[in-house]
Amino acid sequence: MTSSSYSLAQGDAQMPLRSSSVAHTSILFEDAFWGPRLQALREQTLPAIYQQMQQDGHFTAFREEWHAGMYPIPYVFWESDIAKWIEAASYSLATHPDAHLETLIDEAIAFLLTLQQPDGYLNLWFTQVEPEQRWANLRDHHELYCAGHLIEAAVAHFQATGKRVLLDAVCRYADYIDATFGPEESKQHGYCGHEEIELALIKLYHATEERRYLRLSQYFIEERGKRPPHYFDVEAEKRGEPPADFWASTYEYNQSHVPVREQHEIVGHAVRAMYLFSAVADLARELNDESLYETCQDIWHHLNSKRLYITGGLGSSEGNEGFTADYDLPNSSAYAETCAAIGLVMWSQRLLQLDADSRYADVLEQALYNGVLSGISLDGTSFFYVNPLESHGTHHRQPWYKCACCPPNIARLLLSLGSYLYSVTANDILVHLYAQCTATLSVGAHRIILHQQTNYPWDGEVSFEIELDKPAEFGLHLRIPGWCQHARLTLAGEDIPFEVRKGYAYVTRTWQSGDSVVLHLDMPVERIYPHPAIRENVGNIALRSGPLLYCLENSDNPLPLYQICIPDSATFEKQFVPDLLGGIALLKGEVQALERTDGIDTLYHTTPPTTKPYLLTAIPYYAWDHREPGEMRIWLRACL
Amino acid sequence: MTSSSYSLAQGDAQMPLRSSSVAHTSILFEDAFWGPRLQALREQTLPAIYQQMQQDGHFTAFREEWHAGMYPIPYVFWESDIAKWIEAASYSLATHPDAHLETLIDEAIAFLLTLQQPDGYLNLWFTQVEPEQRWANLRDHHELYCAGHLIEAAVAHFQATGKRVLLDAVCRYADYIDATFGPEESKQHGYCGHEEIELALIKLYHATEERRYLRLSQYFIEERGKRPPHYFDVEAEKRGEPPADFWASTYEYNQSHVPVREQHEIVGHAVRAMYLFSAVADLARELNDESLYETCQDIWHHLNSKRLYITGGLGSSEGNEGFTADYDLPNSSAYAETCAAIGLVMWSQRLLQLDADSRYADVLEQALYNGVLSGISLDGTSFFYVNPLESHGTHHRQPWYKCACCPPNIARLLLSLGSYLYSVTANDILVHLYAQCTATLSVGAHRIILHQQTNYPWDGEVSFEIELDKPAEFGLHLRIPGWCQHARLTLAGEDIPFEVRKGYAYVTRTWQSGDSVVLHLDMPVERIYPHPAIRENVGNIALRSGPLLYCLENSDNPLPLYQICIPDSATFEKQFVPDLLGGIALLKGEVQALERTDGIDTLYHTTPPTTKPYLLTAIPYYAWDHREPGEMRIWLRACL
Repeated sequence: MTSSSYSLAQGDAQMPLRSSSVAHTSILFEDAFWGPRLQALREQTLPAIYQQMQQDGHFTAFREEWHAGMYPIPYVFWESDIAKWIEAASYSLATHPDAHLETLIDEAIAFLLTLQQPDGYLNLWFTQVEPEQRWANLRDHHELYCAGHLIEAAVAHFQATGKRVLLDAVCRYADYIDATFGPEESKQHGYCGHEEIELALIKLYHATEERRYLRLSQYFIEERGKRPPHYFDVEAEKRGEPPADFWASTYEYNQSHVPVREQHEIVGHAVRAMYLFSAVADLARELNDESLYETCQDIWHHLNSKRLYITGGLGSSEGNEGFTADYDLPNSSAYAETCAAIGLVMWSQRLLQLDADSRYADVLEQALYNGVLSGISLDGTSFFYVNPLESHGTHHRQPWYKCACCPPNIARLLLSLGSYLYSVTANDILVHLYAQCTATLSVGAHRIILHQQTNYPWDGEVSFEIELDKPAEFGLHLRIPGWCQHARLTLAGEDIPFEVRKGYAYVTRTWQSGDSVVLHLDMPVERIYPHPAIRENVGNIALRSGPLLYCLENSDNPLPLYQICIPDSATFEKQFVPDLLGGIALLKGEVQALERTDGIDTLYHTTPPTTKPYLLTAIPYYAWDHREPGEMRIWLRACL
Repeated sequence: MTSSSYSLAQGDAQMPLRSSSVAHTSILFEDAFWGPRLQALREQTLPAIYQQMQQDGHFTAFREEWHAGMYPIPYVFWESDIAKWIEAASYSLATHPDAHLETLIDEAIAFLLTLQQPDGYLNLWFTQVEPEQRWANLRDHHELYCAGHLIEAAVAHFQATGKRVLLDAVCRYADYIDATFGPEESKQHGYCGHEEIELALIKLYHATEERRYLRLSQYFIEERGKRPPHYFDVEAEKRGEPPADFWASTYEYNQSHVPVREQHEIVGHAVRAMYLFSAVADLARELNDESLYETCQDIWHHLNSKRLYITGGLGSSEGNEGFTADYDLPNSSAYAETCAAIGLVMWSQRLLQLDADSRYADVLEQALYNGVLSGISLDGTSFFYVNPLESHGTHHRQPWYKCACCPPNIARLLLSLGSYLYSVTANDILVHLYAQCTATLSVGAHRIILHQQTNYPWDGEVSFEIELDKPAEFGLHLRIPGWCQHARLTLAGEDIPFEVRKGYAYVTRTWQSGDSVVLHLDMPVERIYPHPAIRENVGNIALRSGPLLYCLENSDNPLPLYQICIPDSATFEKQFVPDLLGGIALLKGEVQALERTDGIDTLYHTTPPTTKPYLLTAIPYYAWDHREPGEMRIWLRACL
């Protein structure tokens, strides 16, 4: 980043700046990009998911005795789908009251409550199908994972409606879990194979102010990976099974290979890792525990320097739904589960609140606009579970999945998107993401209405108009994205100087109501080059503009996409097309393509292939697979 | 091919020229390249395979009752390993008498004969383990396949030793098969799922002059793929199983989807296809059936224009050990089974004898020096089953395989290699392959001793000295390989003109004993470019010199091989190193490699990577995986 108009802060200015998130209800979206998406989520996605769960038998299958021939076979974690739907629907209800939706939520909650046992235990599978297996296999059975999603749903529902019915139920459940697991001799020393309850308990602590939930979260985090004996071995032995170690890397798979504080590399199942480290970041904040933050930083650095897709997707392999080896980032076989990118957004947000460092916001934005957003169709009714960077024409969004974790997960993330845009301290507003909206924010004693106007992500000009009861001094700190090479700030049309701290333009002054600040972010089309150790992409480039990664599709480019190459001299222009794919900016540029070779009758030649000019059209990656099936490709070959 | 000194023949000169193979016993190798390989095969490979079969229990496991816990579990086609070993050992015995080896062969034959039933049936599994399953599943059980290998072994043993014991046994077996299968109402209308018996029966016909074996071969070939009903459905129904059609593409898998004469594309299991079309070529010759030859040509053309690896390997997929889609030729996941390349050599030889067209010999040579020869270690004691074009360091030759088809198959091919060098007509000698040797050939009434002297494949100069009782007129027609762009012929040091017919330099004259003809083949280092539809190799090049394809290994190039790129301007020199890998010519050339990037802490950049000069060392592909494990790569990236 170079500009004569700003300076980098020195010394203690680089100390972490903690901030707090803002409720999504404080944000009113007026955005041309997000507005239609959020409307589709409310009007299409929530009903579609509810209907899919009904068809699956989520609400009915377990009412009868479960039997072996039942089809479809229920999943052991079915109620987590219901819980995530309740959570997403509650976020919607909080900003857009809807009596019918509220009734559906109430019915879903009533169904869940029928399952609660006198001791507080609340689980579908292990009350209806295998009650004798309660807590018998924490490694594989997702019981505490499901409990976590029930808790998150309960907190969201309580915050949206003030109704305590689900919150009270999950508190009883959490109290029962607290009585079952813990350091005491009399309790089990276990934790869940799929992390989730840890971050949920911290949410429950905030909602109830009951510190025991924080302590229980801390217990699950700190106990994880201790040995000998390893808890998953102990419980396996009780089941008469070989130890988990019997399967190579089982422990890395669920991040229990060593205690969390001793972990420095991102390994195993990607979603599990994201949920765990989100909770670790929460705990670092609650306990002011610098070493837990350092653990997060190590893991973050390893992920970002060795194992993250350019889409913000993560987890290269279907085998473990997770990480493999450094720089092993294949394109067409990429797993990059939608839920993992969602988890990365969750973790990034927590780290960003631990320290206002735009590296965290950059990754949050990268994942949000690319690896997450690709996971849902423009109309909100079909979903990717897996987000490859290259397709040969057979990978398509589906209305539902047997293992349906992703659809309700993307719904709950995006329906609470407002909470990701800003955070506040006692003296500052930090702006992390750009979208047209009106925010009502409290900074110290000041109540501030902030009008953000922008065409982001299509261009990089963003204006902020401040509405105040009376003049107030506070900082308005605007993120300068990592992709931006040149940024300016103007106040009433005049450039103003600013200091850059960890990627944020710091502007602290006494603001008058009506003050208007405009951030000008250069947003050219950029070529991105991969690290030379990424085997599949040596010699390739990708096209990016602002936060959006671009891709080619056969719909626009009817030739084998691997036959296109990008000369050094090629330039690309952005063309906004309002009626294409919900309104997108295309990239157009003259490149080269191999000459057609239909007549060539031999496979190997001593003369090089020839190329001819070709007018390339690229679309944002998130918008792919909405037209006729065909090839898709992010990484393009540079010309020889 | 361009040269002022030769002309292309016109008109009827382009009619097919049929020729006959020469017994491998007529060739005495004095070759620096092949000599040590053949010595290793005789002295190391044959004993090693015998020992492995003993350890497996090939000769003993079936003597006791087979039981479920037996380890290792025998294969249903175990006696084909024994048969191929007998065949290979017999070829060795024919040129290098060895009393100990002869005893081992006799013992192996004696063991096989103990299995023969009173009706002539001779099979290990279906006499010892599941006698009630005889002929119950021709599709999967390999019974007729095993019979074919027993027949090939018997013919080779008879020709090597004059002993009729195994030949008589297989004739009884073949007669029993002939009584079981055939067009008559009373017989079964089946054929084997794994082709092999078809070509074996034609060998048996030649050895015995019993025309019924030719007719039975023809029956199996012509009956294949007829429907309705399809034989594999009929027998499946008898077993109470769903029809073979139940599994998609089952019929293409074993080339029974349509009758052979209606097949125009190469599909299914690669080895099966090669054995089938070898037999089809044999049958075309025996019957003078032009349409069967046209079938072979169609299939050949499809294989060569769409589905053949540059190594002469074939069959892209492990799933079906065979073909997938046109241009689907991945590198690191290539299957390219050694047996399939061996089958291609067998088929090419038969086509070459149907017509002296060097396209067939080019492919034969390409497969022999690359995809076949890679299948056996230099010391003759370890083997590749699968021959990828790229390895990340984990693919290594093994001393043996549970499914051990490849080791004895490569032994029988190479120990009969002499039969592939020449073929003859009543008036001509055709020279297909170049190697230093002395051949004793009969052309019409002439007995000719031909001394071939050469350093092939390291350089392209080959001299022929003719030894005759008296002057004789005949044609000496020398193949000009497809890779050669310029060839000359000299007689007593003087250029002589020659006519080129289908890639052979035709020289017909009255020869005197002592005449010396020298063929000068330009053998530069060439860059090979792939067809632009081969997805994985767009932008890549390969290095070839003469028949040898080259590859890089980490042993010589200690950096990630995908970080090397080849500039247009690079030139490569050949350096013969006698004490490296049995004596090989290295290729050396200055290319470029990406700068080391150990310190780069981010995965994606807006600045392109930089390169620096690098001195590349390439070795022949056949010689890879003899040093420390590491990466190997044939296709190299061309520089941007």
